Amino acid sequence: MTVLSEEQVLQIHEASMTILEDIGIRWLDEEALDLWAQAGAKVDRTQKHVWLDRGLVMELIANAPSSFTWRARNPRHNLHIGGNAVSFVAAAGMVNVNDLSRGRRVGTAADYAEILKLGQMCDLIHMGAMGGVGLHDVPVSQQHLQRELLAYTLTDKAIWTFIHGRTITTDVLNMIRLVFDGDITNGGPVIGGVVNVNSPLVYDGRMLGGLITMARAGQVVMVTPFVLAGAMSPVTMAAAAAQQNAEALAGVALTQLVRPGAPVLYGAFLTNADMKTGGPAFGSPEAALAIAMGAQMARFYRLPHRGNGAVTSSNIADAQAAYESVWTLWPAVLSHTNVLIHAAGWAEDGLTFSYEKFVIDVENLGMMRRFLQGVEVNTETLALDSIAEVGPGGHHFGTAHTLARFQTAHYAPLVTDHHNYGTWLAAGAPDTRQRAHSIWKQWLQDYEAPPLDAGTNEALQDYVARRSRELAASQLYEDA
Amino acid sequence: MTVLSEEQVLQIHEASMTILEDIGIRWLDEEALDLWAQAGAKVDRTQKHVWLDRGLVMELIANAPSSFTWRARNPRHNLHIGGNAVSFVAAAGMVNVNDLSRGRRVGTAADYAEILKLGQMCDLIHMGAMGGVGLHDVPVSQQHLQRELLAYTLTDKAIWTFIHGRTITTDVLNMIRLVFDGDITNGGPVIGGVVNVNSPLVYDGRMLGGLITMARAGQVVMVTPFVLAGAMSPVTMAAAAAQQNAEALAGVALTQLVRPGAPVLYGAFLTNADMKTGGPAFGSPEAALAIAMGAQMARFYRLPHRGNGAVTSSNIADAQAAYESVWTLWPAVLSHTNVLIHAAGWAEDGLTFSYEKFVIDVENLGMMRRFLQGVEVNTETLALDSIAEVGPGGHHFGTAHTLARFQTAHYAPLVTDHHNYGTWLAAGAPDTRQRAHSIWKQWLQDYEAPPLDAGTNEALQDYVARRSRELAASQLYEDA
Repeated sequence: MTVLSEEQVLQIHEASMTILEDIGIRWLDEEALDLWAQAGAKVDRTQKHVWLDRGLVMELIANAPSSFTWRARNPRHNLHIGGNAVSFVAAAGMVNVNDLSRGRRVGTAADYAEILKLGQMCDLIHMGAMGGVGLHDVPVSQQHLQRELLAYTLTDKAIWTFIHGRTITTDVLNMIRLVFDGDITNGGPVIGGVVNVNSPLVYDGRMLGGLITMARAGQVVMVTPFVLAGAMSPVTMAAAAAQQNAEALAGVALTQLVRPGAPVLYGAFLTNADMKTGGPAFGSPEAALAIAMGAQMARFYRLPHRGNGAVTSSNIADAQAAYESVWTLWPAVLSHTNVLIHAAGWAEDGLTFSYEKFVIDVENLGMMRRFLQGVEVNTETLALDSIAEVGPGGHHFGTAHTLARFQTAHYAPLVTDHHNYGTWLAAGAPDTRQRAHSIWKQWLQDYEAPPLDAGTNEALQDYVARRSRELAASQLYEDA
Repeated sequence: MTVLSEEQVLQIHEASMTILEDIGIRWLDEEALDLWAQAGAKVDRTQKHVWLDRGLVMELIANAPSSFTWRARNPRHNLHIGGNAVSFVAAAGMVNVNDLSRGRRVGTAADYAEILKLGQMCDLIHMGAMGGVGLHDVPVSQQHLQRELLAYTLTDKAIWTFIHGRTITTDVLNMIRLVFDGDITNGGPVIGGVVNVNSPLVYDGRMLGGLITMARAGQVVMVTPFVLAGAMSPVTMAAAAAQQNAEALAGVALTQLVRPGAPVLYGAFLTNADMKTGGPAFGSPEAALAIAMGAQMARFYRLPHRGNGAVTSSNIADAQAAYESVWTLWPAVLSHTNVLIHAAGWAEDGLTFSYEKFVIDVENLGMMRRFLQGVEVNTETLALDSIAEVGPGGHHFGTAHTLARFQTAHYAPLVTDHHNYGTWLAAGAPDTRQRAHSIWKQWLQDYEAPPLDAGTNEALQDYVARRSRELAASQLYEDA
């Protein structure tokens, strides 16, 4: 699906080049400024302001791979990133968790562990989303260590994590090296992280420390401006897309300056601000257009694309949550978004991980997988013999053709209920949330940890113990 | 959006031709059998079975117009049917109504009047859907008379109605002639109806009476097989699509036999049966594929297309209702369905009209309208001056560019709530249904009847009074 004409793509490209050349971007990191200066860009060290020539930017991004393999601890879960492949990732970066039995509360390490387990249980969640929720019961200086430890032990899928500054990111890399016996680049990267932009047009030091450290290690950077049109960019979607494009390309270019060929994704997270409340409007029609625009621009530059699915402004897993999520999922998948973050569990503008919504979203991911399989048309599936056998009138419930196929012919629903009103009423009239509740509980009950080498586990534990002592009392989130 | 390759379209076409030629269709109506016999088709009068040669079918459907104007009482509401135009129609044919304050109940004339008023109030509902719910407090013999009377007096939009048999359909035509001063064909038809197929491969007498009567009067027939794959057709979607295609083409061909050039739509309403419950699976991924297939086949024959939006199996307007509805709306609109019936209010497998869901669906129709407007890309919307003015850091809330546009730049939500958790909680934590409830109540309060000529009104009342006396005690729904 495309929403921009070729001419419009070029117009947005041209506008972005003008932004990079004439307006420029602020980079709040000395090493980033050094790198740009060495590359010959015009740099104002005092204002930390850099103007990038289009020739330099295009030359740099041409080095980025258009596809790569993102390796998982279990090679069965390796992911191909690029082309038409779509990978689904659970919601991440939430402050709270919410479920029907325990209510809404600030997230803890135990909640985070549950989110990892849910992701591990679902074959439709292709990546272990690290940091599903904050570990607010763990001291700040140790949160990243516990976060990594839980992820490496509870899931064997490909993982992404938070790469906030050099200290945290170095710990992340040290730990993942233990998991992969030191080899984190041969055959593809093994970990990645999102680098957001402080839109408009600012990369902060914490993000740049992470970007530079990850790119240098050959790991995945998902450069993602987060833009609310009307707040962090002009209110018109064309301007927002042009600014986002300039911001994304600048970050992608920096990864290639650090390490040519480093795996990187062109990320986009653009929607409109609700001009009445000032808050974000997730799942809006403008967001649907923005999703398609982001994917189209990424493809124009032959870069793999990171987008979003199943985001909503709704505070509960109700009708609004569902329609806003599908309004995100459809354009994202139809535009061939390669890594679809926040594909399950996102609620409340991204503040809260909803267990019930996780199940509801997974249902929609399953439906999307079935939809993408399309229709098989051949002599067997056209079944003219069977149509002739039943003839006019009659029904097909009992034919040999039906009996041989009825169990697998159609998508088998997860939380969707096809019972009629009477049967549903007799079952207590459960709404979608209530049905979802019992499903995630069952998943947690059925969860089994994937095997992990005892030596690796010990090495990870030792590392976490040592670094926890060293980092005690440091305020890592203040520190780039 | 297309889901079938050109080759697959041809495969389905070929299979359909084989069905029409070798398997045949049963037509439970003597006049229909006469028409086919006169046209040279092979007819078994005893079995009422007809085999149609592909040459005859293709010759007949070539006479059908690929587009036409469907006139409304108020010419401002005239609809262009065909091409890429999409018209939204509210849910129709329900048994019950349901709303949060009055609960679920069997529909009455008063409920039906409210549904008509809601449709009249929404500019996103392009057509007055007649028969939103049955008039179960009116004697059977008079229901169609009261139904038409309410529609012609409460809405001035284009209308469609039930065309069950010759008696009812003749009354419908007589009444609409009173509304249009006798001229119901010049400049385009003024009324239409759906003709369903008793799938597999049977047209019953009631439907054929309606089809023949409407086509003869030059009014719109929306030929619509309703097929549940696995029940009324083989379980495989390719077979279901081929059977549906054969059924639809046969009905379209008959309209052209009755009156060459009669306005007709290629309708499709195909989904899978849930093979566990035996019930229909609305909003399933198979249905999404089927919707796109139906639209693609209609386009292959250059026929306007009738499809569906916002259908669901859910018994309440919860998350499932919302995602199933959007799973219907997106493929229907992206496939350029021309008349999208059941676009608002459908609940519970089509048994119940939900007032709250009507509002929620209208929100999604509005979002779709905005989405279809796409992105405007020009110097003004790219707003490079404004991006330069704000520069890196800062925000765009107060710029001249934003202030000039913030009220109209983005889609203004109807029932969607963008308030944060705290504000929402303080407002009583209303879910989407509760917010929708107050919206439709307001709409009913704000409703004003469109003007109707006093003479026309009197003529309609007289007709209904006379025919009510004549039809008293007849069982019209038994009578073809």
